[in-house]
This record gives sequence, C-alpha cells and structure tokens, in this order.
Amino acid sequence: MSHTLTVSLDAMGGDAAPSVVIKGAVIARERYPDVRFLFFGRKDEVEPLLAAHAGLATVSTVVHCDDIVRDSDKPSRALRKSRESSMARAILAVKHGEADVAVSAGNTGALMALAKFILRTLPGIDRPALASLLPTLRGESIMLDLGANVECASENLVEFAIMGSAFARAVLELDNPVVSLLNIGEEDLKGNDKVRRAAEILRSSSLHLDFVGFIEGDKVSEGVADVIVTDGFTGNIALKSIEGTARLIVRLLAESYKSSLMSRLGYLLSRPGLRGLRAHLDPNNHNGAVMLGLNGLVVKSHGGASATGFATAIGVAVDMARHRLTDLITGDLAGIVLDDESTARAVGGAVGEDM
Amino acid sequence: MSHTLTVSLDAMGGDAAPSVVIKGAVIARERYPDVRFLFFGRKDEVEPLLAAHAGLATVSTVVHCDDIVRDSDKPSRALRKSRESSMARAILAVKHGEADVAVSAGNTGALMALAKFILRTLPGIDRPALASLLPTLRGESIMLDLGANVECASENLVEFAIMGSAFARAVLELDNPVVSLLNIGEEDLKGNDKVRRAAEILRSSSLHLDFVGFIEGDKVSEGVADVIVTDGFTGNIALKSIEGTARLIVRLLAESYKSSLMSRLGYLLSRPGLRGLRAHLDPNNHNGAVMLGLNGLVVKSHGGASATGFATAIGVAVDMARHRLTDLITGDLAGIVLDDESTARAVGGAVGEDM
Repeated sequence: MSHTLTVSLDAMGGDAAPSVVIKGAVIARERYPDVRFLFFGRKDEVEPLLAAHAGLATVSTVVHCDDIVRDSDKPSRALRKSRESSMARAILAVKHGEADVAVSAGNTGALMALAKFILRTLPGIDRPALASLLPTLRGESIMLDLGANVECASENLVEFAIMGSAFARAVLELDNPVVSLLNIGEEDLKGNDKVRRAAEILRSSSLHLDFVGFIEGDKVSEGVADVIVTDGFTGNIALKSIEGTARLIVRLLAESYKSSLMSRLGYLLSRPGLRGLRAHLDPNNHNGAVMLGLNGLVVKSHGGASATGFATAIGVAVDMARHRLTDLITGDLAGIVLDDESTARAVGGAVGEDM
Repeated sequence: MSHTLTVSLDAMGGDAAPSVVIKGAVIARERYPDVRFLFFGRKDEVEPLLAAHAGLATVSTVVHCDDIVRDSDKPSRALRKSRESSMARAILAVKHGEADVAVSAGNTGALMALAKFILRTLPGIDRPALASLLPTLRGESIMLDLGANVECASENLVEFAIMGSAFARAVLELDNPVVSLLNIGEEDLKGNDKVRRAAEILRSSSLHLDFVGFIEGDKVSEGVADVIVTDGFTGNIALKSIEGTARLIVRLLAESYKSSLMSRLGYLLSRPGLRGLRAHLDPNNHNGAVMLGLNGLVVKSHGGASATGFATAIGVAVDMARHRLTDLITGDLAGIVLDDESTARAVGGAVGEDM
C-alpha cells in the first residue's frame, strides 16, 4: 500500500460529463488524499473546471483527446473508430502502466468492448464479467454477470464464481466469501442443465470456494450469500428489478407522506432515521460495476450517477487497485491448476495450457 | 354472469391448511356472496372448522380425500401416486364441470404437473404458463412465465403474450393491454436470439396485440406495460427479486422507525399514509398465480399466504371464471388462425391442425 495509486478517468463519459467527473474526483480526493488522477478529455472543457479545485489540480494531469464515444455508438463502431477516444485512452493508460485502474461513466457496451480489446482477458478466463455491489439486509453483496455475457456456458459461470470471490475478498474485505448460484429453487434438481452443471463443478473441493449452492431471487436481498453468480441476461434483469422496486417504494413512500398534514409532520420527525434508509438504498452509494477477468482494472460508473456516485465508483476502483485484484484472480486460477488439472480444464479450458 | 360460480378448494394445501383455507373462504364469501365452494380434504379436519362459519357452510360441500400432496413431493411422484389427493380432486372437479375454477396453496410443481395432466393444454398452446399480478406505480401488471417453463423457445414466449393479454383483459379489465418482452435493453438488437425472434413474431399485425417491444427490469415497477412476458427462469428470478427487495425495504423502514423516540412518534403520525403503501406492497394483496393455457382454470396461492391472501387468490379465480378466461384465450388463438395461417403456425405449431 506504499505505492501511490493513479486512477485514469474518462472525463467525457456520462450524462453530465465532464462536470460530474471532476466533482466526483474532488470528493474522492478528500477520501483518498494519496491518489493521483489522469483525466482524458477535451482540455478546453476539463481544465477550467479543474482550475476551480486547487487541491485536486495539484494531483491531476489532463491529457487532451478530441474523440468521445457516444451513448448511441455500437460496440463494434467504438472498436473501429474510437481507439483515440477519452474512453479508450483511459483504458490504454492502465495497459501502459500509467494508471492502476480506469473509471468511465460512458457507453457500457463500448467500454466492455474496448476494455476487452485493449487489456485482453486473463489466462484461464474465457469471458470477462461485469460485477457490482448491491445493498442487502446485512450490508452488501456482489452480483455477476450483469450483462457482459448474454449467453453463458456452465464453465463461464464457474469463472464468474472464482472472479466474484476474489472481488469480494478485495472490496468487501472478507476472508472466505460465501458464493452461490442464482436459481429458481434451492434443491439440486431445480433450474436448467447449465446451472446444475455449474453447481457440480463448483462443489469440487479443489476450487477453494465457500460454495453454498443455489439461491433464490428473494434471498439475494437478505445477504445470505456474499457473491451471487448468474448469466448476464438474468443478472441484468435481476439487478434492474431490484433497482426498479427500490425506486417504486421510495416514490410511494414520498406520496404516502404527502397524503395528509399528519403524515407530513410524521415524516419530519422520523426523517433522521429515514435518511439512513435512503442512504442505504441510494444507487449512488453502490455505484461502480467492475469488469472482472481482464489484464487490468476497469470500473463502469452509472451514466446518470451524481458526483457522490462517481466518487463511490472511484472508491471501488481504489479498493480493487490497493488489493491488487488482478493478481488475486490470477493467483486463484493458478491455485486451481496446481491442485487439479482436470478441474482446471473443466473451468477455464485454456488454463492448463496458458499458465 | 347469471350462472352461480363454484370454486373448488384444495383444503389441505399450504403451510397452515386447512384453517387458512377455510378462513380465506369466509372472507371471499363476504366479497362474493353468490359463489359456492367445494372443499376437498380430510372431513374430520375440515368440517369442524366449517361448522364455526354458518354462512360459509350453507354454500359449501365437503368431499373427503385421505391423500395429501406434500411440499417435498416431486411432480413425478405426485403424478404417479397422488391422483386421489385433495389437490388432484380439486382439479378433477374443474375437468368434470363440477367447479368453474380450482384454488390450491400446495406444492407448485405438483399442482402444475397434475393440472397439465388432468386438464390438458388448450389446442394451439404448446406449454402452459404461470402468471401473476405484481404491484406497480400505476396499479398492477401481469408477469409470465414465473417458473412453469425453465427453458422456452421464441414460440412459447409468443404464446405467453397471447395468454397474458387475455388474462389482463379479464383480471385488470383492460380493453387493449400493453404487452412487452423483458430484456436487457430496449433496442431491437439487445438480448439473445430467443427474445429477438419472439419480438419479430409479436410485431406481426395479425396477432392483435398492443406489443410495445422490449422492457428493462427497472421499468417493470413503473407500470409502463400491463403484460410482461419472459421465460420461466428469468421470470421467477425477477418476481422473487422484486418480492425480496420489497421485504428488505419494509424491514429497513421498520428499523429506521425504531431508531429513536422521535422516529417512533413520526411513524405514529404518518401511519395512515403508510398503511396504504404497506397494503399496496403486501404480497397477500397480489396473491394468486394463474396457470394459463389449460382446458380449465387453476389458481396457485402462496403456501404461506394469510387468510386475506388466500381470499385474494379466490378473488382472482372468481374474476377469471366470470370473464371466461379459457374462452377468451381460445378465441384469441382462433382469431389468429383465421387471420393468418402462417403466423398461427409460427406461434402454436399445432394451432392450424387442431382447430
């Protein structure tokens, strides 16, 4: 932890870029005074904003890029046309060792495509995955994949479990995270072949995972598992269902408070307690989805995140870099190879050959 | 609506059977004074409970069955061994025209297997689906499939859309329900081949559906669509994620109110408003999943539903029977055949031949 960390920022990504990116970095700078920042974006827009924050400016460098990836750009177009964009340059800084981790609030599909193309997947990992924290009754859990892989084989789910466990150790600071597979029932026979076969491999002792089996959708919020593994289609829909429901209830709650003068008074009195609840549910406090499985660290912030939200995403990035997440995952994969070559082949396909 | 409806009840299904079943029927009897009830279960347990409710007893008949389907029974076992169970007999009453609809709070897998075996699927329907109401910002929407079909083809999703639309007309009393497909993005290219192909067929004008395209998980709670179609794996996980999140927030809310004396006082003042919110979110007020696509109506109540919850499930059953849901679906399928034979073949496979 003695090494000074550098975070590269896509200054032009997100709905309110570059202003939210700078404001987020200002907040992050207070939380992590040792961290340095590399901003990639249009100098004429970024530098005046930065000038207003002397503290941040002293630990920041701005690199000019003309090109910006648009939200409407397809990943294939970004790969062909946007190699010099602020997004690509922020990732390249990680590849070239100029930064320890990159953060962008831009187009998710383009970010995943560019990150995979520039950083390449780790040996033994077939497909990178997108992971995120979500609030539970006990604190936070990690869910993956959240949409990087619409269709996954059992082997991919196993890779996600290994990467998710490493991520939980780094970001939730757990020694032995509890890993589960999302399914429509807890019994061994439930679900489809894909999840049943993944569960079989995950039960193998040589994986060193605390795998507890299947978990149902309504148990996720209870925090009974630290890592919830699923394919990108289901994971995306589960995460968004959770977000949508939380938003629905907060809105209905606000309406119920407005329903009478008494309710409004009641709200005022209970506000301090409610503030804690609101903070726990606020997506800005769980912002920062991580691309796991690459030779380098990349964090995706929500496009609509506030400055506080963007600072949370930077926080996730700093945590991952400090805990050397890439090394953790690489080490876990190597451990599997040393222990059991057949499992390794079942898991990664390429693990045995590449390492 | 002049015909007196009869509801057959599996008196032995659910966590607190038969007492919750009888108490639920007592509440339903107040709401639907014209409805008659057929209880299937152990006479020595059911009759004493019924005797305490003279009003209900006058419109009820008890049929003795010794056998009960257990929660741990596999569907295959239920099919082989439980044909004389209270659950099977309640469904048989629908088949034989003794009842208009059956309600059970027992083992879901066994209920689906028995219902499919006894009632058979409608001509033109390849697979029945489980549908349920869920609370939204605007009121209620319908989601299906919720777990009857773990793997579905595009054609199955199209069938679900047709059945879900008929269900929405019957239970939500809408003339032209808005139908959508659950996906990980709204753009045409998002998702997997299965949902993209289903969307293509659904856009066909001869289906007479108000199909609006893809919907993301976080939009479900906003009520932008009346019918949300998905496969049984995703639907089960989405529905349970929604339920789990609602439960989490209600618990956190309760904790926040307990956090100080002021908060507690605030809660007391705002309680009337909060009561409406609680009622809107209470799963007992949205209880009653419907098996669509069979030659007869079957409703599944949550095993843990309260008496009020069981009464809600009976209410869904009564609504479906009054609106002759089976005829509605059959009519919709026939309309497709008349309009466009090629679409019909794409949809049902067997529609063209059987009708």
